[in-house]
Amino acid sequence: MTPIEDIQGRPDTRRIAIDKVGIKDILHPIRVKDKSSGEQRTVAHFAMYVNLPHDFKGTHMSRFVEVLNNHDREISIASFPAMLQEMLAKLEAESGYIEMRFPYFIDKAAPISGVRSLMDYQVSFIGEIDTRSCRIKVKVVVPVTSLCPCSKEISERGAHNQRSHVSVTVEAKSFIWLEELITLVEAEASSQIYGLLKRPDEKYVTEYAYDHPKFVEDMVRDVAARLNAEPRIISYSVESENFESIHNHSAYALIQRVNSPF
Amino acid sequence: MTPIEDIQGRPDTRRIAIDKVGIKDILHPIRVKDKSSGEQRTVAHFAMYVNLPHDFKGTHMSRFVEVLNNHDREISIASFPAMLQEMLAKLEAESGYIEMRFPYFIDKAAPISGVRSLMDYQVSFIGEIDTRSCRIKVKVVVPVTSLCPCSKEISERGAHNQRSHVSVTVEAKSFIWLEELITLVEAEASSQIYGLLKRPDEKYVTEYAYDHPKFVEDMVRDVAARLNAEPRIISYSVESENFESIHNHSAYALIQRVNSPF
Amino acid sequence: MTPIEDIQGRPDTRRIAIDKVGIKDILHPIRVKDKSSGEQRTVAHFAMYVNLPHDFKGTHMSRFVEVLNNHDREISIASFPAMLQEMLAKLEAESGYIEMRFPYFIDKAAPISGVRSLMDYQVSFIGEIDTRSCRIKVKVVVPVTSLCPCSKEISERGAHNQRSHVSVTVEAKSFIWLEELITLVEAEASSQIYGLLKRPDEKYVTEYAYDHPKFVEDMVRDVAARLNAEPRIISYSVESENFESIHNHSAYALIQRVNSPF
Amino acid sequence: MTPIEDIQGRPDTRRIAIDKVGIKDILHPIRVKDKSSGEQRTVAHFAMYVNLPHDFKGTHMSRFVEVLNNHDREISIASFPAMLQEMLAKLEAESGYIEMRFPYFIDKAAPISGVRSLMDYQVSFIGEIDTRSCRIKVKVVVPVTSLCPCSKEISERGAHNQRSHVSVTVEAKSFIWLEELITLVEAEASSQIYGLLKRPDEKYVTEYAYDHPKFVEDMVRDVAARLNAEPRIISYSVESENFESIHNHSAYALIQRVNSPF
Repeated sequence: MTPIEDIQGRPDTRRIAIDKVGIKDILHPIRVKDKSSGEQRTVAHFAMYVNLPHDFKGTHMSRFVEVLNNHDREISIASFPAMLQEMLAKLEAESGYIEMRFPYFIDKAAPISGVRSLMDYQVSFIGEIDTRSCRIKVKVVVPVTSLCPCSKEISERGAHNQRSHVSVTVEAKSFIWLEELITLVEAEASSQIYGLLKRPDEKYVTEYAYDHPKFVEDMVRDVAARLNAEPRIISYSVESENFESIHNHSAYALIQRVNSPF
Repeated sequence: MTPIEDIQGRPDTRRIAIDKVGIKDILHPIRVKDKSSGEQRTVAHFAMYVNLPHDFKGTHMSRFVEVLNNHDREISIASFPAMLQEMLAKLEAESGYIEMRFPYFIDKAAPISGVRSLMDYQVSFIGEIDTRSCRIKVKVVVPVTSLCPCSKEISERGAHNQRSHVSVTVEAKSFIWLEELITLVEAEASSQIYGLLKRPDEKYVTEYAYDHPKFVEDMVRDVAARLNAEPRIISYSVESENFESIHNHSAYALIQRVNSPF
Repeated sequence: MTPIEDIQGRPDTRRIAIDKVGIKDILHPIRVKDKSSGEQRTVAHFAMYVNLPHDFKGTHMSRFVEVLNNHDREISIASFPAMLQEMLAKLEAESGYIEMRFPYFIDKAAPISGVRSLMDYQVSFIGEIDTRSCRIKVKVVVPVTSLCPCSKEISERGAHNQRSHVSVTVEAKSFIWLEELITLVEAEASSQIYGLLKRPDEKYVTEYAYDHPKFVEDMVRDVAARLNAEPRIISYSVESENFESIHNHSAYALIQRVNSPF
Repeated sequence: MTPIEDIQGRPDTRRIAIDKVGIKDILHPIRVKDKSSGEQRTVAHFAMYVNLPHDFKGTHMSRFVEVLNNHDREISIASFPAMLQEMLAKLEAESGYIEMRFPYFIDKAAPISGVRSLMDYQVSFIGEIDTRSCRIKVKVVVPVTSLCPCSKEISERGAHNQRSHVSVTVEAKSFIWLEELITLVEAEASSQIYGLLKRPDEKYVTEYAYDHPKFVEDMVRDVAARLNAEPRIISYSVESENFESIHNHSAYALIQRVNSPF
């Protein structure tokens, strides 16, 4: 049988290098390291890219999926660099990028009754590798309650509150549990939220939120202050999006601290 | 030039009729009748389908787009049937269906300051036609504040509240303004919401919501009671989805009243 | 300690029953029965509702989450009714509804090289229960290639093709594997699709699709014919949405066969 | 009446400045300059942010909506800086950011029949302003057909093709019509796409695409080459996402050229 020619492997003469080429929006089951139970199984959306020098016509798309299939083992912040290296080797590339986004579950106890339920958080691992370095960023989207200080102060009773998404993206110089990042954010919210609350719990979170009003500005500042105090974190961004209960749009704030490399 | 054969027009022998065939997710600018200013311009997502008898191989997809292009005029609840009839005639079909979904803007005055701003509502016109009848349903998604009665009663201060979407779908026997449906829903919410609120307005909506706590069950019941009292309405469904501020999931309720045809 | 009053349990005097009330858009990890490997772990979005008679003020939202937490075991088409019954009992309701939507993975072999990769399919289990009966519907969304017969016939070379989603929803009177439904749909596509294809595979699927052109109408009819021939299936709907490569909108077709109950 | 205190205006002592604070996901009708007909009316999603120095507690969210309400006039690439300046002044901020995303319609003639129909494109204006400069970027998402060169070459008949989104984001030193950017992209696609095609048009686009196969790598390189040759463009990124018809994931490529400021 005549071999089928590999067109993607042909030389290219346009002299334009490509920053990122690969596959996007592919789903794959994964196992993620988990502080309480060792690991958990979930499903991730992947984007996997490499650079392409100006003199190559195309990359080999099927090899990305092969890398994914090989990684039917646990993927953690610790093992993520190995996946990036494998992709780089397999694609014969100089730089690479993998983003993997998945729901992550934490078994939480309600504040008063102690009744347990799962809370889901959107987590992303974002890795960039080249011949010199490999940098991993971790992003967690933490749903919380925010309660408006202005509404509380000017109103004789009540205060508007709502669900908010506080997103923290960090680059660290040593290992941090997802649970640590999530706990750090939840500690600064008007109230953390839960999958399951009994009446005494609902009383508690209502009063707690009323006692801890936060503007969207306060939320990102207070989380930023915690991240500033954490020596393992090199750089970060913190965002809060409040799905305002008195408007049909969101309030939003962002603080970024980009450190020079260590 | 030899004419290009019309394959879709060939006979079909599988003896299976098709309930709906057509185009989906096409965007088109429209003009909609507006109670205050005559008409407003917005952009709609359309789905347009006809039936296909068992002995026809295919429909003529391009004719749906022609119907759309012809309707570069105002589309209102009143003129919508004409669009359905035109589609039926052009496609030589026995039954047809058009769904058109668009953001609709109302210029609202804030409750105390009177300052004006636009609020957007998702509106759908859903029309079904056959050789005997033409039925139009109108759906409005009304964003409101809901405040939890349980949280209020059991807590010494505050009460959790959140943005909710109350969706009302009605079939009417005579003309109803979109503004009437929206006002009807907003009157039953813990509080209506606005694009722009000054501090005295924020105080007002906070206290108003605190004084009008509603479970998701109350919301759909109280809107249903209003719809029951409206003689122009033949059938309806009312849904409320509360994007709970103390959970990462929604509370949801639905009441449907399907009347026999008039 | 004085017990906190249960407001939701109070009587209601509006005399309006609620068709569905419960929770929506809650994520939960699940295990699903799998033809090849026994079971697979994935993540599902749940909606869980019960009816509420006119004389009850509210339902008990936290109990839905308790049902979910109890079901940390395998959920399959066979065990799904037990989950519905448990919800009905726990909520003291007369009728109930659960919808559970999740990505489901099948390890497929490429057609020529035999190389294996995972394909993901969106699957839903939809269950309705009342005091007399429990009905389960299963929906699978199968991504396939569709190739246009008209484009092929009128063009001297090539034919436009695209990704399509063929969705089949069935109610069966005896057990059907998800794999059976998916295979049935894939057999009627212009071509089935894969996570990973080598060059000989790509040649094969390209030529196979060119040799099996199908209009959106053909797709739903040919799948309907197969479903008609399957004695286990009581009722079904089959939809195809073709994300047209020559337009910025979809072509769509639907066939429904609603049988009388067995 | 005692005035209600302005809490957001209080001093803040945490010494953490906020990069961006404002409102997100607010809808507003707009008028956009249009090459053929002067202007068109559409609906935009806005994000509007300013910086907040470390010594201010909060920004004034309602003022963002006021800026939006004032801009009930035409917004074009030319008038967009004025909107940024107005926001900066009104919010008493040092830097600001507005992103405005909207569907934009072009009335296109089919290639053979000349029949006219509207095509929709997602367009964004992204503006950043500070006390020294105002920079505007324009992004257009252009849906096109891509046809795989490998599939064509290795197959005896046919070639897989699909809808792709080619996104171009540019910063220019002098005025460029949206229509120019869109035309530039469409010229490099395997084929451009249309709202409405008659059979002779369908034959034409099918054969044209078959005669112009492009990998995702070719697409971004050929568009980049055009952008490189355009002296008005200072910096750009070009992305292509191909919604592969033979896979359930996308192929993706990106080229960025960030020029030094002029």
